[in-house]
Amino acid sequence: MSSLKNDRYLRALMRQPVDVTPVWMMRQAGRYLPEYKATRAQAGDFMALCTNPELACEVTLQPLRRFDLDAAILFSDILTIPDAMGLGLYFETGEGPKFERPITCHADVEKLPVSDPEQSLRYVMDAVRTIRKALAGSVPLIGFSGSPWTLATYMVEGGSSKAFTKIKKMAFSAPETLHLLLDKLADAVILYLNAQIAAGAQSVMIFDTWGGVLSPRDYQLFSLQYMEKIVAGLTREYDGQKIPVTLFTKNGGQWLEAIAATGCDAIGLDWTINIADAKARVGDKVALQGNMDPSVLYAPKERIEQEVSDILAGFGTGEGHVFNLGHGIHLDVPPENAGHFVEAVHKFSKQYHK
Amino acid sequence: MSSLKNDRYLRALMRQPVDVTPVWMMRQAGRYLPEYKATRAQAGDFMALCTNPELACEVTLQPLRRFDLDAAILFSDILTIPDAMGLGLYFETGEGPKFERPITCHADVEKLPVSDPEQSLRYVMDAVRTIRKALAGSVPLIGFSGSPWTLATYMVEGGSSKAFTKIKKMAFSAPETLHLLLDKLADAVILYLNAQIAAGAQSVMIFDTWGGVLSPRDYQLFSLQYMEKIVAGLTREYDGQKIPVTLFTKNGGQWLEAIAATGCDAIGLDWTINIADAKARVGDKVALQGNMDPSVLYAPKERIEQEVSDILAGFGTGEGHVFNLGHGIHLDVPPENAGHFVEAVHKFSKQYHK
Repeated sequence: MSSLKNDRYLRALMRQPVDVTPVWMMRQAGRYLPEYKATRAQAGDFMALCTNPELACEVTLQPLRRFDLDAAILFSDILTIPDAMGLGLYFETGEGPKFERPITCHADVEKLPVSDPEQSLRYVMDAVRTIRKALAGSVPLIGFSGSPWTLATYMVEGGSSKAFTKIKKMAFSAPETLHLLLDKLADAVILYLNAQIAAGAQSVMIFDTWGGVLSPRDYQLFSLQYMEKIVAGLTREYDGQKIPVTLFTKNGGQWLEAIAATGCDAIGLDWTINIADAKARVGDKVALQGNMDPSVLYAPKERIEQEVSDILAGFGTGEGHVFNLGHGIHLDVPPENAGHFVEAVHKFSKQYHK
Repeated sequence: MSSLKNDRYLRALMRQPVDVTPVWMMRQAGRYLPEYKATRAQAGDFMALCTNPELACEVTLQPLRRFDLDAAILFSDILTIPDAMGLGLYFETGEGPKFERPITCHADVEKLPVSDPEQSLRYVMDAVRTIRKALAGSVPLIGFSGSPWTLATYMVEGGSSKAFTKIKKMAFSAPETLHLLLDKLADAVILYLNAQIAAGAQSVMIFDTWGGVLSPRDYQLFSLQYMEKIVAGLTREYDGQKIPVTLFTKNGGQWLEAIAATGCDAIGLDWTINIADAKARVGDKVALQGNMDPSVLYAPKERIEQEVSDILAGFGTGEGHVFNLGHGIHLDVPPENAGHFVEAVHKFSKQYHK
């Protein structure tokens, strides 16, 4: 890590001492920034932006020019893997992502290719290389993927869902089909994240956006089991540097002990759990990332500062906290409020570090 | 309770001995039943069905003709109170409920009337009286309301929401406006449920569908506090019979201890918690209702039976369990699968009761 000017983020994930608590924001490169909207308009549409390494690099760096963030995160979409598998990702205005050819049966799953991401997802690896070079050692670069369960929900439902009817029908009436799909996706995610690491990602995060719609048993069976397989298959050290892995299951606060037992380095927390309780449950095993309700960024500066102070006090002294929002920043947050948030984390966290 | 032929449901809520575990299903009167669709077509639209006491009674009774259910629940909508307050409830096909005049400012809240439900929501009380008479003491009738927080989300957002942007903006930048709204709603819910009890409801349930989108502190502040006020204001004994109260917060599994401390008789559980864990945490204070994933009803009979057996084994011996789904039954579930579910609960629960 000696080559990084600011390595707080990586140190905190490894529960090593830092001067102030590091902070970044999920979806920090995004629509709340006017410069993002301009670059996206230049690209044409969302996928054109994702597949253009120069423009993906540009939007990745934009929030770092405004705010004193301790990490950059690759700008990409979580559905690149199923798109590369041939499902035909597209976006309909106001409706979120959709697939032209969703998974409907066992034969569909058997046909899915698991290919070399340097071939099938070359644009992602090119973006990682471009961003890493542009960062020039200022802060670390985070790579990421969706979890197998979360990817599978979109692949089987054909897009976003509220009740997850189709994939749950599959889970309860054709579990062998779903397990085959999840296992293939776990293999694909391992290849994908290891390729990102080889291309320059200094830490990786797995987003399990929809694991929280499962029962405890089904979460273990259909989501966590496959994230554990991924953690075991990842390159954990590259070029002499440890590569920390963070798992984030939205609405997964009830299952922190099980998540900590996967061998990951850190757990991402949403805002439905008190971070003091989370630390008491797993703090000696893993670092914690989180966990301010992103909606607090609608509030006046004083209220944002109060919330940041409360969460810092909740975690208290000791290492292993990466400050973040509990989910992605909302698209209509005033950018200056994000600035107040980042400043407050650094300002109020000094007292908790020696 | 001597007047009821089947009082298992009320006994279980009071943690008294029963012969088998009582069972009912959230949304048991609904679109998965062809006879419901026929009656709704006869009524014209959804609100026409809700406001017609004879037809509301008819659909309330329909599932009891098919299945050996241990309770009936008033057929109505959770948004009757804001509609009676003048917000103009309407339904757009495929988009869920909407309000013509959502709450946008403090003055809007100050203007809201809290009126006598026997005047403003007479159709609901007439439905309760009609259903209670038609049940003729076969099983108890459950009355219900949305929680203040849940009602407020629709009133401020103007309909359904994913990110709850508007109400969270209000919570963090104009909390006094939101508290005034929630306090008025708590008063209105107390009047509404007490009127239902006077009209014949033998137990009441409060649905907090959206409390789970809050942080632990905000859940206490904006949702639970007002449910506690309601519990304290309810008629708990009527005509010599105890009226048990059930609170259900979807995604509230992390806060069971706090919910149990409100003075309610029972807690509704969604399926994201193991019922054995829930019982260990609060089982000596309150009864538990739940908690099968409604999607299991898509599965073959054997899989449904296995799931029912697992949940019954999780609760184990001892009183205080009302079996239910963890949320409403899905509209595309085959009715015979609901029948397998109800039968399985009665069949496999005998061994846990003396």
